[in-house]
Amino acid sequence: MVGLPSEAIERALESVAFDESGLICGIAQQVDTGEVLMVAWLNRDALRETLESGRVCYYSRSRKKLWRKGETSGQVQRLVEARLDCDGDAVLLLVDQSGVACHTGRRSCFFRSFDENGLKIISEPEVSPEQLYGASGH
Amino acid sequence: MVGLPSEAIERALESVAFDESGLICGIAQQVDTGEVLMVAWLNRDALRETLESGRVCYYSRSRKKLWRKGETSGQVQRLVEARLDCDGDAVLLLVDQSGVACHTGRRSCFFRSFDENGLKIISEPEVSPEQLYGASGH
Repeated sequence: MVGLPSEAIERALESVAFDESGLICGIAQQVDTGEVLMVAWLNRDALRETLESGRVCYYSRSRKKLWRKGETSGQVQRLVEARLDCDGDAVLLLVDQSGVACHTGRRSCFFRSFDENGLKIISEPEVSPEQLYGASGH
Repeated sequence: MVGLPSEAIERALESVAFDESGLICGIAQQVDTGEVLMVAWLNRDALRETLESGRVCYYSRSRKKLWRKGETSGQVQRLVEARLDCDGDAVLLLVDQSGVACHTGRRSCFFRSFDENGLKIISEPEVSPEQLYGASGH
């Protein structure tokens, strides 16, 4: 998706039900395979920037600032389509993920499956966190 | 999935990072098509019941009680697999959805797409809310 016009974005933002912390839940799904990659949060500025730029930008609750996915790691999410749910408090981001979504180096953050022994790891890292970030964080 | 043994569930629950309200985010995805159906919340009891029973149970924040998906509408979600994300605060529920997931009668709650005019409705109800619920709510 190329960026949407500002007027359309502002009109759409009126239908978004940000919570008492000013956030909505974002689910990133790889557009061609349907794989759910990750869940993170967006505030109004993050959603606006995502729709304007066509690159996914979240809001980091821990760092309390915009988190342009891939700005450190290079693992950007190109936005193909964004969909809002019925009560307006979750957005489905259909993306084309460069490389891996997870900070552990795995394609998806959902790499642990509940099974008869507790939790089982079902996928291994494709790259090392050191390759993604050098010495530090997301 | 048939229900998991209690011991395995309790062991897995130790890795789940419930937030300050005791909740985690749940994403329901139709297992065969990959369609993301809905996002809702689970507390510890809801997640435990989901894993024990093999039927998805959420926690309704508005009604402040367990919400056994489909108990009124008949539109149950049979659990096939549950996956936990890297930081333990979101669970991906791979389900087989009977009928529709959305209270509007649509298959998915994500039926509005951001476009150059604002928001566009991209799917229509398959059944009427009245057919699902009679006179009232979820």
